[in-house]
Amino acid sequence: MSVKGYRRSIRRHRHLGSGRARTVALLLDTRLDVRQRSEALIARLEPQDLGLQGMADASPPKWHLAHTTWFFDTFLLQPHLEGYEPCDPVWSYQFNSYYEALGERHPRPQRGMLSRPAIAEILAWRQRVDNGLTRLLQDGDPALISLAELGLHHEQQHQELLLMDLLDGFSRQPLEPIYDPHADLSTVVDPTSAEWLPCAGGLTDIGYQGEGFHFDNETPRHKVWLEPFTLMSQLVSNADYLRFMADGGYQRPELWMSEGWAVLQQRGWQAPRYWRREQASEHWTQEFTLAGRQPLRPEAPVRHLSWFEADAYARWCGARLPSEAEWEVARREHGDRLLQAHRCLWQWTASPYRPYPGFQPVEGAVGEYNGKFMSSQFVLRGSCWLTPRGHERDSYRNFFPPSSRWMASGLRLAR
Amino acid sequence: MSVKGYRRSIRRHRHLGSGRARTVALLLDTRLDVRQRSEALIARLEPQDLGLQGMADASPPKWHLAHTTWFFDTFLLQPHLEGYEPCDPVWSYQFNSYYEALGERHPRPQRGMLSRPAIAEILAWRQRVDNGLTRLLQDGDPALISLAELGLHHEQQHQELLLMDLLDGFSRQPLEPIYDPHADLSTVVDPTSAEWLPCAGGLTDIGYQGEGFHFDNETPRHKVWLEPFTLMSQLVSNADYLRFMADGGYQRPELWMSEGWAVLQQRGWQAPRYWRREQASEHWTQEFTLAGRQPLRPEAPVRHLSWFEADAYARWCGARLPSEAEWEVARREHGDRLLQAHRCLWQWTASPYRPYPGFQPVEGAVGEYNGKFMSSQFVLRGSCWLTPRGHERDSYRNFFPPSSRWMASGLRLAR
Amino acid sequence: MSVKGYRRSIRRHRHLGSGRARTVALLLDTRLDVRQRSEALIARLEPQDLGLQGMADASPPKWHLAHTTWFFDTFLLQPHLEGYEPCDPVWSYQFNSYYEALGERHPRPQRGMLSRPAIAEILAWRQRVDNGLTRLLQDGDPALISLAELGLHHEQQHQELLLMDLLDGFSRQPLEPIYDPHADLSTVVDPTSAEWLPCAGGLTDIGYQGEGFHFDNETPRHKVWLEPFTLMSQLVSNADYLRFMADGGYQRPELWMSEGWAVLQQRGWQAPRYWRREQASEHWTQEFTLAGRQPLRPEAPVRHLSWFEADAYARWCGARLPSEAEWEVARREHGDRLLQAHRCLWQWTASPYRPYPGFQPVEGAVGEYNGKFMSSQFVLRGSCWLTPRGHERDSYRNFFPPSSRWMASGLRLAR
Amino acid sequence: MSVKGYRRSIRRHRHLGSGRARTVALLLDTRLDVRQRSEALIARLEPQDLGLQGMADASPPKWHLAHTTWFFDTFLLQPHLEGYEPCDPVWSYQFNSYYEALGERHPRPQRGMLSRPAIAEILAWRQRVDNGLTRLLQDGDPALISLAELGLHHEQQHQELLLMDLLDGFSRQPLEPIYDPHADLSTVVDPTSAEWLPCAGGLTDIGYQGEGFHFDNETPRHKVWLEPFTLMSQLVSNADYLRFMADGGYQRPELWMSEGWAVLQQRGWQAPRYWRREQASEHWTQEFTLAGRQPLRPEAPVRHLSWFEADAYARWCGARLPSEAEWEVARREHGDRLLQAHRCLWQWTASPYRPYPGFQPVEGAVGEYNGKFMSSQFVLRGSCWLTPRGHERDSYRNFFPPSSRWMASGLRLAR
Repeated sequence: MSVKGYRRSIRRHRHLGSGRARTVALLLDTRLDVRQRSEALIARLEPQDLGLQGMADASPPKWHLAHTTWFFDTFLLQPHLEGYEPCDPVWSYQFNSYYEALGERHPRPQRGMLSRPAIAEILAWRQRVDNGLTRLLQDGDPALISLAELGLHHEQQHQELLLMDLLDGFSRQPLEPIYDPHADLSTVVDPTSAEWLPCAGGLTDIGYQGEGFHFDNETPRHKVWLEPFTLMSQLVSNADYLRFMADGGYQRPELWMSEGWAVLQQRGWQAPRYWRREQASEHWTQEFTLAGRQPLRPEAPVRHLSWFEADAYARWCGARLPSEAEWEVARREHGDRLLQAHRCLWQWTASPYRPYPGFQPVEGAVGEYNGKFMSSQFVLRGSCWLTPRGHERDSYRNFFPPSSRWMASGLRLAR
Repeated sequence: MSVKGYRRSIRRHRHLGSGRARTVALLLDTRLDVRQRSEALIARLEPQDLGLQGMADASPPKWHLAHTTWFFDTFLLQPHLEGYEPCDPVWSYQFNSYYEALGERHPRPQRGMLSRPAIAEILAWRQRVDNGLTRLLQDGDPALISLAELGLHHEQQHQELLLMDLLDGFSRQPLEPIYDPHADLSTVVDPTSAEWLPCAGGLTDIGYQGEGFHFDNETPRHKVWLEPFTLMSQLVSNADYLRFMADGGYQRPELWMSEGWAVLQQRGWQAPRYWRREQASEHWTQEFTLAGRQPLRPEAPVRHLSWFEADAYARWCGARLPSEAEWEVARREHGDRLLQAHRCLWQWTASPYRPYPGFQPVEGAVGEYNGKFMSSQFVLRGSCWLTPRGHERDSYRNFFPPSSRWMASGLRLAR
Repeated sequence: MSVKGYRRSIRRHRHLGSGRARTVALLLDTRLDVRQRSEALIARLEPQDLGLQGMADASPPKWHLAHTTWFFDTFLLQPHLEGYEPCDPVWSYQFNSYYEALGERHPRPQRGMLSRPAIAEILAWRQRVDNGLTRLLQDGDPALISLAELGLHHEQQHQELLLMDLLDGFSRQPLEPIYDPHADLSTVVDPTSAEWLPCAGGLTDIGYQGEGFHFDNETPRHKVWLEPFTLMSQLVSNADYLRFMADGGYQRPELWMSEGWAVLQQRGWQAPRYWRREQASEHWTQEFTLAGRQPLRPEAPVRHLSWFEADAYARWCGARLPSEAEWEVARREHGDRLLQAHRCLWQWTASPYRPYPGFQPVEGAVGEYNGKFMSSQFVLRGSCWLTPRGHERDSYRNFFPPSSRWMASGLRLAR
Repeated sequence: MSVKGYRRSIRRHRHLGSGRARTVALLLDTRLDVRQRSEALIARLEPQDLGLQGMADASPPKWHLAHTTWFFDTFLLQPHLEGYEPCDPVWSYQFNSYYEALGERHPRPQRGMLSRPAIAEILAWRQRVDNGLTRLLQDGDPALISLAELGLHHEQQHQELLLMDLLDGFSRQPLEPIYDPHADLSTVVDPTSAEWLPCAGGLTDIGYQGEGFHFDNETPRHKVWLEPFTLMSQLVSNADYLRFMADGGYQRPELWMSEGWAVLQQRGWQAPRYWRREQASEHWTQEFTLAGRQPLRPEAPVRHLSWFEADAYARWCGARLPSEAEWEVARREHGDRLLQAHRCLWQWTASPYRPYPGFQPVEGAVGEYNGKFMSSQFVLRGSCWLTPRGHERDSYRNFFPPSSRWMASGLRLAR
């Protein structure tokens, strides 16, 4: 729910008397769950893993735990909770991610060098912030509840990122650590259920509709014109993708965007991000996962692809990527016949990440949340198996640069 | 005209008997004009200017003259003219721009190092290719005529690029050479004629329609839905832009895309690309142009902006950039009331450069012309004062990365 | 003692009967001390500090503990101790520093990314290796004793490096951690005791002489011709260096090597590596140390200088750096009148690090220890306050590239 | 001759009356020769070759012609010739090479972008400066004559550099231009004349001695102690070097300095700089030269080696590089029995480029000529076939960084 939408909803609740108390109680419960889950995520790690940063795009686990806490400290407790003692300004500097309005911040590629504060200090801070939140939200001020809700969804985003970043950091180590033997995606794609789902197109609406939480970039709901199209009922599998590779997919420039071909050559791409070969072999038969190195399962959906690879694959098989509007409409029309729509892999679309017509970011520093990233990225739809339960939404717009591969991306074809 | 469209048109001409001869004669005339103009462009240069490459994105004048000739040599004469002796394979390697299907090519950033072949050799080659074309096109084979027409429009594009690249190369030299005292844009923007032109929006069509030449990326013509909008009747002026700068435009991150703010900081942007200060002054009062360093005229349209600057300016004044569909529709509805639509400055739009629904590139190497650049760029509409006469078109889709500033870009506001 | 020298010494001991047992006992005692001291060094650290790598030239504390153990595992236990189970080959890959003869190794700049093996595993390995060493050395095989002695001196070098690297890693963190409030150098330079110590020069010998341990690069002892010279009795102080800075030392290119001036400009050098200014001040009044940020003491010797800064300072005051031969001869002639010769700061010399005439590295992989670094570095003489007791020697040749500043370097003038 | 030495010599001439006039006449004659030769060097070039800069270390031919003229304009004519109109300050900015005392200058890697001033303007400037020199030197002021002499030797150095830089620039072009079919080195190394020339060593002197011109870095003449040594009578040949390569010379890290091995891997070195393979072949059978691509002659001396390659080769065959003192002494003792000492290839020595004991650079900006380059470079002795006649000297100290290969370097062994 946007801040504005949330205010409307809360205003209505006021008339209901006990409704307000219920809202607060519910939020406080959720808060507990979400906040505790972050800490549960690091329970399996070795102390030095907490500072691990595999590349500039990723952040160490410890940083994620601190940054999500900084969000509450900065946007809720400091301005609104009387008597709250804010964190050390140096911590603010270290754990601000990208909010320009809040001043200078620590350079992202050097987050792995922040060995201090120690994890014990951060966990103590988390506790202090949690206590502050409980006190602050008792009154049920709708604007604060709305901000707290944003903070929790923000933390859920970082839980997913924490695991993706960890996969990257572990993948770069010769010892190939196992995060959790049970942490990997188990979905399979059944070739016999493949089906082109037809959609009539025409003039329709997309964007968030309803009263629940959503990010500002999912609104305003607006009209789009779509030509008739079909969407594949399921994701592309490893077996499918191996055929593309066997047909020279990574050696044929005519299948690629010019920019993608340059990236491929520069980085030496020959397969998806975490595929592995056995020592002497030419064949890609293994995949690095949160459960360690595993055999590559042909029936699993292909993942950790850049947009460039997804786009080249689609071109190779005479299809294309769906636009984000097509994805949303097909999901609305076909419901669960659109298999693996959620809790499997984020799905690249053909749509550059740009504002919906009439989009307005929220006022103030929180307005930097989404709007300022609307150039040179593509939209992904759906959600993935690492997405916290309840965080997914059909109108959700995830986004990454077209050359990124470390996040849990897959692809679905359109025609 | 696309290859397919051209074939249809030629087929019709065949029935007309003399029509075919007329088509050929007309094309041969055009050919002469276009080809000679390229050579006229370098008449004012010093010999060492011909090898000047100011940056990796730009190419030396000599290279432009050779590359446009290579296009005819490779796509027309070698495959189709019996007895034609192709150029040295090394020349092909050097003067191929980006056609992957044609094999390896010389790295773009090192074009300035190609001191050979000497200009005299290239001019002799141009002559030989021109003679070949005359012979080849006598028969009036429609497919070849169509390809030749593409080659001529390609050469016109490079004429414009040659001058933009030269401006860049000259701008980097302490001696600030003058290309031509009369080469600069003279358009002025009259503040009293500023007007918001309303458009009703709704369901409409955009894309090329007709029988003339056009690039493949302008098709297929297709439906789009537009909310009601207004477009400013004229371009933003230097005076307008100076107000943005005086209001801290280059110091306020909240006005910028995150990616743009990073570029601004990294490159130290403080003003448009070619603006200059006098020695001791803090004020931007001069501009480097093809006519050398000139006083900055407040009434001239602001130019050599990146998309990031155009976008930030629009946000600053509470407006936005138009989508490319809006630009094309407003032009259709308001005609010449949309001032400076052509022959002034290319105009940034809010639209990422992506294929129109149903877009298909031409078969073969020529198909690399447009389609493979459709990621991480934005569309510009209109044309500029350096565009060769007759090359402009309302459906023309020019495109550049959002951080590029050396091309003749300006901006028009929408709401 | 070189391997050859050690063999001679051991051979002599054999005749003595109990001498051999004494040698072994002594070595085993030393071993215990040296090995335990490494572990004592990390006792004060937080768990995430163990993986901290501030820059490519430095290594994390955990890596130092593992690498020094790898040395014994690889060069002593694997080839010589029957039944010894070598470490995981991946560990070998990770903890080999630069021994090309031993195959591929993990890239140095990415040592901070090795979150595994965990510290507990490394400490267990250390114990296992220590036990193995005790067994192996019981027999008193002179060659093995000699290698073990090299391994212990190697570990002492890394103890010093560990602390220097930690200072670098801590210095990059906004929280400015304190390693140990008592860890800083306390030496002062008394201006009233400054004295030019004259040396007659002439034909003399330098290089190691004797029966004790020494590195191969300190031999062969050989003749050099020296003109008469004088050496300053003490090191240059912070107060001295502040005068150089006040006189524009960092703004006057004529004082600098061309290469040094380029480095200065590129890295923005304005003062020694760890000097700090208070927020609003122009004055350098603080210094970051292992005891945290401290007031800059004028009477302390200036430190953490590059060779370029030391050379520029010497030129500024009309003096020069001593050659390494001059340093060694002055130390021989004047003994303790050469103040701060040891246990204060390593002292830059004017001598490029090159082999002594007739130098031969040891056979095998251990031969990579010193010889292959003899280009583009300068020699430092003496030792520093972080040097383990007993590790210092007058003939010791330390060496670093001329732009390095993170090691404990100072300077002494010559004329 | 140093400035001081020259003054002495001139003072003596004053007593001789006509001696002074003779000196002036001789110098003016030399001037004419030297200056004209620079212009003769570019006679064979195409106009675009004049701006060719193949890499940051090299400069375009036009720049060399301008820079050598700037030297006279700046150091002689501007300060000393009444009524002389100095060149445009922008030209000074462009054509200053590295004299920090003279202010800002154009960045070296961008010299190839200076398409202006045009060559015609530079040739006119050269003429004007030559006329000025004739007038200025008429009076025979010894200090000015000395400076003019320095300027002429400076120009000779640049003549050699111009050709080396051109070879580099031509070597990067696919068309492999020929500078002059007769420009290549014709020396052969006769294997039957190979001989180790013994030298007794001991206490001896090196450095320039005499009354003629010399650079400041060749003085002061000073004592050195040398152990007995032998020098090979001739240079290493291509045939010799091919044996090193066949024995895995470029694949065996134990033969290389650590720094050199890193450079080798980073740049992919597999053979000397200009060696070439035929298309499909594994064998190095050709060499790019100023006479174009030529068969590799086994009997020719190997050339265009980095110091790292020379050092690795010497280690491979159980020898070493001579120190510069050994080279100079062997030359003195054995004269022409030291074959190829001059006019063949510069010969790498084992000596880092450092000041002779007591070295003092000249006062003022001219003092930047040599002294400030005395770090991280190695000395080469002798001269090469591109060295202008009369410019060579036994005490001459040439110097380059150990990874440079584009200059005409070869190697001679010592033991």
